[in-house]
Amino acid sequence: MNIEGYSYGKKEVPKSPVTLEELERLKQSASLTEEDLRHLKTAGDILEGQTDAVIDTWRGIIGSLPHLAYYFVGPDEKPDNEYKAKVKERFKQWVLDVCRRPLDQSWLDYQHEIGLRHTHQKKNRTDDATTPPHIPLRYILAFTAVVNDTIKPFLSRKGHSADAVEGMHRAWCKMVLLHVTLWSRAYVVETDW
Amino acid sequence: MNIEGYSYGKKEVPKSPVTLEELERLKQSASLTEEDLRHLKTAGDILEGQTDAVIDTWRGIIGSLPHLAYYFVGPDEKPDNEYKAKVKERFKQWVLDVCRRPLDQSWLDYQHEIGLRHTHQKKNRTDDATTPPHIPLRYILAFTAVVNDTIKPFLSRKGHSADAVEGMHRAWCKMVLLHVTLWSRAYVVETDW
Repeated sequence: MNIEGYSYGKKEVPKSPVTLEELERLKQSASLTEEDLRHLKTAGDILEGQTDAVIDTWRGIIGSLPHLAYYFVGPDEKPDNEYKAKVKERFKQWVLDVCRRPLDQSWLDYQHEIGLRHTHQKKNRTDDATTPPHIPLRYILAFTAVVNDTIKPFLSRKGHSADAVEGMHRAWCKMVLLHVTLWSRAYVVETDW
Repeated sequence: MNIEGYSYGKKEVPKSPVTLEELERLKQSASLTEEDLRHLKTAGDILEGQTDAVIDTWRGIIGSLPHLAYYFVGPDEKPDNEYKAKVKERFKQWVLDVCRRPLDQSWLDYQHEIGLRHTHQKKNRTDDATTPPHIPLRYILAFTAVVNDTIKPFLSRKGHSADAVEGMHRAWCKMVLLHVTLWSRAYVVETDW
C-alpha cells in the first residue's frame, strides 16, 4: 500500500491536542460500543472492493453542487484533476480505516491531521495544490449526512441479513460522527471545543 | 402551548447570521429532499405522544456519563432539577419542531438561538440558572450519534412498515445534522465556519 500523502502512523504527523482520555469520553458520548467495533470489522470486509464506487457516489453529489465542487477547483476555474485523484486515493483508504483502525494514539493524531488538511492550516499542502485554501466546517458537518446515508446500500451488497446491515450501519454512523467531531477541533478555539 | 423560555418565532430572537440562501446550500449539502420533509411530517405524528420518553432516553445516557451530566449541575455540585425540567420541555418541543417546522427565517433564527444557548454567550440565561456556562462543541457533535441512533425504535412503535420507518429515520438523521451544523455557527469564527 503506497498512497501519496497518506501518512497514517508516520512520525511526521503531529500529536493531536486531544488526549486518549478525552477520546474515551467522546466514544461514550457517541455510545460507541465493542459491538459496534465488531460490526465495523465486518463492514470493512464488505466495503473493501467497493471503495472506488463509494467515493464516486460522494463525488457525484459534490460535483453536482457548485458550492462544494468549488473546493476542488484550481485558479483556472477548472477542476484540479490531479488533486482530485490524489485525494480520492486517501478518501478510499479512509473508508477502510473507519472500519478497521484501532482507536489509539496514531488514530487520534491522524484524525487531527485530517481536520487540519481541510482548513487554512494545511489544505493543499500535502499535494502542493492551488485549490481554495479552506473548506468551511458547515459543509463538512452537513455532508456527514450524505456519508452516513449513502453507505447503507453498499453494506447490503454482499448478502448479509437485514439485521447485520442495520448493525453495521448504526456502527458506521456513530464512528463517522466521532471522526467529524475530532476534525472539528481544527476549527474551534480550545476553550470552546 | 406555553413552554417557558421557548421563544420560537418571537421578535426577541435575534436574526441568524446565516442567510436563507446559505441554508439552501446546506440543505443540498445534506441531501435533504422534499421526500424527507414528507417523511418527517409522519415522524412528527408518531413522535407526538412519545417526546417525554425520547428525552428520558437521551437524559438517561447523559445522566450515566459524568462528563455530560456535569452541564446540568449547580454550584452545590447537585443536579439543578428546576433547570433540567425547564430545558426538558423545550427539548421535547424540539423533537416535534425537527419534524414539523418549515425551514424559513424563523427556523433559521431559532437554530442560531439554540446554538448560542449552548455556549458562553447564552447558556443559563434563559432560565437564570447557575450550571456550567458552556457545553463544548465536541459533546454536541458526538451526542448527535445518540440522538440519531436512538430515535429509530420510537419511529417503529406505531405499526408503520419497515420501509416507512427507514425513510423517516433517514430523513431524521439528515435533518438533525442540519440543525447541529447551524448550532455550530455559535462556536466558530465566521471565516472558518
